[in-house]
Amino acid sequence: MRLYVQASLGEKEKAHLRQLLPADIEPVFESELPAEEREAQVTGADLVFGNPPAEWLEKAPNLRWVQLHSVGFDKYQHLSIPAPISNMKGFYAQPCAETAIAGILALYRKMDWFGILRTRQEWVGQPLRSELGLLLGKNVLILGTGSIAQACRKILTGFDCEISFFGRTSPEARFRSREELIAAVSEFDVIINCLPGTDQTRHFVSRELLASLKPTAIFANVGRGSTVDEAALVEALRNGTLAGAALDVTEHEPIPAGHPLWDCPNVILSQHTGGGFSDEFMGLTDAFLRNLKKFRATGTPDHIIEPKKGY
Amino acid sequence: MRLYVQASLGEKEKAHLRQLLPADIEPVFESELPAEEREAQVTGADLVFGNPPAEWLEKAPNLRWVQLHSVGFDKYQHLSIPAPISNMKGFYAQPCAETAIAGILALYRKMDWFGILRTRQEWVGQPLRSELGLLLGKNVLILGTGSIAQACRKILTGFDCEISFFGRTSPEARFRSREELIAAVSEFDVIINCLPGTDQTRHFVSRELLASLKPTAIFANVGRGSTVDEAALVEALRNGTLAGAALDVTEHEPIPAGHPLWDCPNVILSQHTGGGFSDEFMGLTDAFLRNLKKFRATGTPDHIIEPKKGY
Repeated sequence: MRLYVQASLGEKEKAHLRQLLPADIEPVFESELPAEEREAQVTGADLVFGNPPAEWLEKAPNLRWVQLHSVGFDKYQHLSIPAPISNMKGFYAQPCAETAIAGILALYRKMDWFGILRTRQEWVGQPLRSELGLLLGKNVLILGTGSIAQACRKILTGFDCEISFFGRTSPEARFRSREELIAAVSEFDVIINCLPGTDQTRHFVSRELLASLKPTAIFANVGRGSTVDEAALVEALRNGTLAGAALDVTEHEPIPAGHPLWDCPNVILSQHTGGGFSDEFMGLTDAFLRNLKKFRATGTPDHIIEPKKGY
Repeated sequence: MRLYVQASLGEKEKAHLRQLLPADIEPVFESELPAEEREAQVTGADLVFGNPPAEWLEKAPNLRWVQLHSVGFDKYQHLSIPAPISNMKGFYAQPCAETAIAGILALYRKMDWFGILRTRQEWVGQPLRSELGLLLGKNVLILGTGSIAQACRKILTGFDCEISFFGRTSPEARFRSREELIAAVSEFDVIINCLPGTDQTRHFVSRELLASLKPTAIFANVGRGSTVDEAALVEALRNGTLAGAALDVTEHEPIPAGHPLWDCPNVILSQHTGGGFSDEFMGLTDAFLRNLKKFRATGTPDHIIEPKKGY
């Protein structure tokens, strides 16, 4: 049985995978193939680990299971194949939540600014104190109720924050519609966006929603860049109608040279590293192996997604 | 009765203080006096709010109470006067703890580095992911058991950290002596120093202690700069025997131009702003007024310190 490994594993992870794969599964690593041979290897594969182009998956008649290496699957929204597709649900929740909270705390305590001052060898000290804020007791709105949202909630309890969720269907959501949300959003000090990128969530954080925030509010995005009206966000930061933004994701990645976000005040751009951590690829490999075991034993892997639903 | 206000209050806080002071207390604000008149005003004062020179307090025969605007009182260690001296115990605990955790998270999630990359308009992205760390579940050592230490502990529970305290006399301390500590210190991922500056704590974080840390360890200092052998700390950061340091306090403040800390790798210098927050001076003013009420009602203010003890 052929396993096509699109995920960009290092040598250590490849050796680990080779060692633990059942004997009847032969792995083929994309990183070891010339570019022109990749499509043929995917279309001939039985199993896929990683995120190859959707059109290649549609042309693979023997395909029995696809394990994506991501949680998001925007690029598969129009994919329709008989094989089950799994995502890495939950795998990136803690790193993404830590990046969100690190970004919010960095804005309140000026950690990015102290980095810049250090490169200039410039001491400001005392006068900066009155510009600092506290996360303690803040009123926090979390957009989404999935695993990143839950990991954020858990961390924020250590800061005695009050937390409200937005989610269209979740029983724990306080807000279910944009209208309800916009009517109440001015009460929040911090907004953390964990929404996935779907046709329905496009520009969910709209100009209208941004205009309804209180001017001291801080916005963090560890969901998808497409969910925010970025032009309106840039304006809000420039006009000071929003106090700061910690953005792990943006509409265009990499952010192009000259893009206004690069020199927006009070913005932290963490360059879509939110899911990262030093053992990420070994962790992904182990998660794949666990789900492979489940798939072989029961015929049904964990975390099957519905591409059309978009989350 | 004359109240000498050395604390550098803004106009808003001064007006607030004037409005709420009992009628028989007349405030004199240092910021409104020529430098040459200040000593005479302190030596003639009945009450002091702030941190004037120790030798002036020694020459003030009518002095009935000194309310420092700080928690630390290193510079009064050799002061001996009959009037009680209070500090701002607990007042700075949450801001200092938030600066410590913000610094640690910034190091794990590279928030200071993203600030620098933003000024360069430079996208690195993906390759940085494997350099990121997680605070989740880390084994944390807190030096000190006072209010900053407790505020750190509380925040860290949201990250499922295991926490051990060092304190010479506290019942909740796991370590009571430097020897015990050095024998076990290599088990910790994160060390947060909240020790006060006294003769006994000078260079407590010694070359030997630093050499005993694991190379992936991160060190944060929200205590006093004098408690760390800074030359040894710089070497550990340069040699990579310490993974990072978030320093709110340093041996010399401001850090002089050309000091090696300015271009040490993986260091965040938050320039002794850890206690700061936007309502700091109004908060201090209210804390003074509350303690004044207590002092007038009972003759004994809260948070009386023993200068010789140093904490």
